[in-house]
Amino acid sequence: MSSCHVAFIPFGIHVSCARGSLLHEAARDAGIALVSVCGGMGRCGKCSVIIEQGIVPPPTPLERQKLSEKEIASGHRLACQTRVQDNLKVYLPPASILTGWQFDLVCAEPGAAVDPAVQDIVVSLHAPGFYNPPSCREQLAAAIKNACGVSVDRADEAVLRDLPALLSESSGCVRASIRDGEIISVRPSGQGPLGAAVDLGTTRIALYLIDMLTGMPCAIDGIINPQITFGEDVMSRISFAMQHGAAELSKAVIEGLNQLIRRMCPAPHRIVEMVIAGNTAMHHLMLDLPVKQLGIAPYVPALCAPLDVKARDLGFDTAPGAYVHLVPNVAGFIGGDHVAMILATGIHKTSRTVLGIDIGTNTEIVLGHAGKLFSTSCASGPAFEGGHISCGMQAAAGAIEKVTIRDEVAAFETIGGMPPIGLCGSGILDAIAELFRCGIITKQGRMLDAPGMRALGNKKEFVLVPLEKSGAGKDITITQQDIHEVQLAKAAIRTGIEALIAEAAISIDDVKEIILTGEFGARINPASGIALGMFPPFQLDTFRHVGNAAGLGAMRILISKFHRALAAETAQRIQYLELMTCPGFHKIFANALYIPAKDSKRG
Amino acid sequence: MSSCHVAFIPFGIHVSCARGSLLHEAARDAGIALVSVCGGMGRCGKCSVIIEQGIVPPPTPLERQKLSEKEIASGHRLACQTRVQDNLKVYLPPASILTGWQFDLVCAEPGAAVDPAVQDIVVSLHAPGFYNPPSCREQLAAAIKNACGVSVDRADEAVLRDLPALLSESSGCVRASIRDGEIISVRPSGQGPLGAAVDLGTTRIALYLIDMLTGMPCAIDGIINPQITFGEDVMSRISFAMQHGAAELSKAVIEGLNQLIRRMCPAPHRIVEMVIAGNTAMHHLMLDLPVKQLGIAPYVPALCAPLDVKARDLGFDTAPGAYVHLVPNVAGFIGGDHVAMILATGIHKTSRTVLGIDIGTNTEIVLGHAGKLFSTSCASGPAFEGGHISCGMQAAAGAIEKVTIRDEVAAFETIGGMPPIGLCGSGILDAIAELFRCGIITKQGRMLDAPGMRALGNKKEFVLVPLEKSGAGKDITITQQDIHEVQLAKAAIRTGIEALIAEAAISIDDVKEIILTGEFGARINPASGIALGMFPPFQLDTFRHVGNAAGLGAMRILISKFHRALAAETAQRIQYLELMTCPGFHKIFANALYIPAKDSKRG
Repeated sequence: MSSCHVAFIPFGIHVSCARGSLLHEAARDAGIALVSVCGGMGRCGKCSVIIEQGIVPPPTPLERQKLSEKEIASGHRLACQTRVQDNLKVYLPPASILTGWQFDLVCAEPGAAVDPAVQDIVVSLHAPGFYNPPSCREQLAAAIKNACGVSVDRADEAVLRDLPALLSESSGCVRASIRDGEIISVRPSGQGPLGAAVDLGTTRIALYLIDMLTGMPCAIDGIINPQITFGEDVMSRISFAMQHGAAELSKAVIEGLNQLIRRMCPAPHRIVEMVIAGNTAMHHLMLDLPVKQLGIAPYVPALCAPLDVKARDLGFDTAPGAYVHLVPNVAGFIGGDHVAMILATGIHKTSRTVLGIDIGTNTEIVLGHAGKLFSTSCASGPAFEGGHISCGMQAAAGAIEKVTIRDEVAAFETIGGMPPIGLCGSGILDAIAELFRCGIITKQGRMLDAPGMRALGNKKEFVLVPLEKSGAGKDITITQQDIHEVQLAKAAIRTGIEALIAEAAISIDDVKEIILTGEFGARINPASGIALGMFPPFQLDTFRHVGNAAGLGAMRILISKFHRALAAETAQRIQYLELMTCPGFHKIFANALYIPAKDSKRG
Repeated sequence: MSSCHVAFIPFGIHVSCARGSLLHEAARDAGIALVSVCGGMGRCGKCSVIIEQGIVPPPTPLERQKLSEKEIASGHRLACQTRVQDNLKVYLPPASILTGWQFDLVCAEPGAAVDPAVQDIVVSLHAPGFYNPPSCREQLAAAIKNACGVSVDRADEAVLRDLPALLSESSGCVRASIRDGEIISVRPSGQGPLGAAVDLGTTRIALYLIDMLTGMPCAIDGIINPQITFGEDVMSRISFAMQHGAAELSKAVIEGLNQLIRRMCPAPHRIVEMVIAGNTAMHHLMLDLPVKQLGIAPYVPALCAPLDVKARDLGFDTAPGAYVHLVPNVAGFIGGDHVAMILATGIHKTSRTVLGIDIGTNTEIVLGHAGKLFSTSCASGPAFEGGHISCGMQAAAGAIEKVTIRDEVAAFETIGGMPPIGLCGSGILDAIAELFRCGIITKQGRMLDAPGMRALGNKKEFVLVPLEKSGAGKDITITQQDIHEVQLAKAAIRTGIEALIAEAAISIDDVKEIILTGEFGARINPASGIALGMFPPFQLDTFRHVGNAAGLGAMRILISKFHRALAAETAQRIQYLELMTCPGFHKIFANALYIPAKDSKRG
């Protein structure tokens, strides 16, 4: 038997795979993304699955480390460690699957100026005579000049390929899209222009399909970044690309976007412009640019400047002559998504002193003060996305997102009101803040004995949800290790905030507004953040949430040349601060590990 | 047996092919180009081969028309009609093969100004520090600006892909090629820039490999246009493209050029710019542009303007960021090769009244007079390239290129001094002019009875070379039909010349110089041309030959921005005359059919 058959439940998806291939590869082939923080190295233990039928090889030493005896006995295995050698029926627990998330997508304000880089016009051409007949391209250029005064000096080859037949089929009445003196698309006159604005995140990708005549969205949708099967965080993917090249990662994200486009838009050839805003690593990986130098100090990007590239050169299914505009990067860990976020929140133009914080595995922070923009990036790790947390999960249905502890009993809310299966970032933050408030953990983060606490050997844990109330088939707990992970994460963020405030030579009281963006930022309870010292003691009413600011910014850059120029200018203006080079970095970080924090400067 | 084995002699090339495939396909697979005027339709009879071993199906009706009983009995077949159903040994007669031609390639004058569109510079970069480290692209742009004051605002993606590793391997010392504000190539500093100028002919392709620093050729070579296996003339290829699409034709010519480049240049990635000059159909077919509208009046090109396109988009093996510049076309049958020819001969700037004539299947003619340029194209047919002539062949070794008849005996010279196997264009022209001078044919072109004449049924022919002196295995003859073909061809050319002279409102005495270009132009005896009336009775000393003028012009356009702009301006300046719309066209043509011609206007 050289190939085996694997059935994945609850999906009911069946695949054939080569005997000896890894189970997470079989899942990937089946189109199922499994959680993988470590990039399939067997270190995170997140891709746990249950073998329901069929024989698998004995557990590897890594599996024995990550799974309990009982779990192994009941069929649990790590998909990244298990080789397929038999026909299998495999159950995928919800916490191991990376699909079916909620998207928090905000629309553009109506009334925003529509002045896109691509101009669209319907023209009528007359059949040429015999005397010096102009070429099809010249006829069209003359008609455009005549109709709207715009001079074109180039036409995309795809336009030239379509034009003769289109002119003859349409009796000379055609629609043309013009960009910077180039005719990039010709279509029947009824096919108006569309655009696509993309927020290319490490974890999720959101696409706004825009009517380019009105600037309003026709459709908004998203997918999990298909690169996630090669590693969940930026560093895992850089590491994968250094070993295997970036081509596979580039292909995965572009194919994923093409599928999303086809799902959202029955006529992708009407898409005449795309704008993509992503962090620098996502930008480089999509373009198949080298990332090795992004993985080592001083983290030099291959490219920061805005880039316009033919969509077909990247493999996108759009109008064949369309361009993709990539929003400029600032530094190795400050990308175009940060620039787009600044534009969407207005931080670039406000006269107030404002902090913008996008919390993720890397947390990017901008401080706007006195006409200057200071930005930094801190390696906050995956804790607030559920990674490296024993019962952590991403913000999917069934994730505990709010926690209060009263009389030693935890009350919680889950996403979608489903039975709890794990904790997402805001739930973890709340839970630890509550444990601290109740005196169950110390300023150093050490767990004390208390009701609800239990010890397995020398490992302590607090039972947040006992088995009988859990949808996960086990207790949902907070461990001592979880608290350390959160301390590291919040200390990194706090250090970034402190460093920017010091760089601008202001005090925390000068900060009049704190804008939290992104998915975790939307769910977070600022009071818990302050209680743990992730944030300095800002006034609670200075916090504001702007949902999916990067996507909103990408949309503006799509529909407005003014905003496109502004993005380039803003990327240049930002002063990037490398935390490692900040004076006293190690001391600030060490103090920030305390709960809430030691030596917070005031005034 | 589902595949058969075919051995081609004299090449000694063996191929396997599917049972049932055509013999000319098997030859194509073997890399052997057979003559094919009709595009494999069985109508021209030029792809005659001899089956030496193995069984072939009975001759088709078309083969019975084109081959004599005796030929069929001795194993002659048409390669385009014969299906392979057995292992075969096939002899390819020289006249059926399209390889091994002489190339007549002329060098550029030394001292021509070198001012190419691509600028090359060696720069040294310093390793960036931690504070706001610029991207690799920004570092390179700054070093270029610093070294030569040139501002770049873009870099090709391929450059961005190579740059980080190149900077680290070369300690920051790299060579960059810059074109119009874009960095198109980075290379180790020792790898100087090369360019390629291509004369893309219907039949042959010449490539000049140029050192872009000195503007001088490093190598000159050529190939038969591989599209020739899809049809020998422009119309056959347009017809093939209309039935099967142009993609295969495009691929054939680009792959042929890639092979030529690899043969000529061990480091094709050093080629930073290409210039291609071809007729409008070759231009369109290479770009895979539609050609249907080129086949019907008013013969509208999809594109006339100059086009710059990334070499990799066309599939060329050059520097990955290099561009191909396509010399602009003028009309459906006046292409960039005509523009390049005008530049190379100086017709665009002379104050004299000059005719430039490039004779081929289509003959393009330009008249420069009083600062104006008038051009036309005439469908002269393939007679002067040996097509549609019973013993015709192209100008290869063994072709009779000069004929004199004295005392009813023909004396001749062959190319390469080989035994005669057929007649190339200049030989045909000489032979018919001599037959007319000797009174053996009338003004109407009718053959009279005379020594050396013989009749097969009602078909007359003149035996130029009897079997015993022939290398073709048969008599080399001139038939009545051959004379008609030449009359049609020379009448077309004469009509074009007359029409241009009429358009410019001058007389033939005003023409001070006649420049003949191209391969046939190099061999032709102008006196024979005048004797037959192909040319008006110009003074013989006004004729001049400029070899491969189109290639020379392409080379100038490669190494000089001035000449590139001049080509665009010249293409615009040319007034195209469509012969069909000229007053009295049919009468002029009918008169021109006479030998030498009736009613030639003088003064």
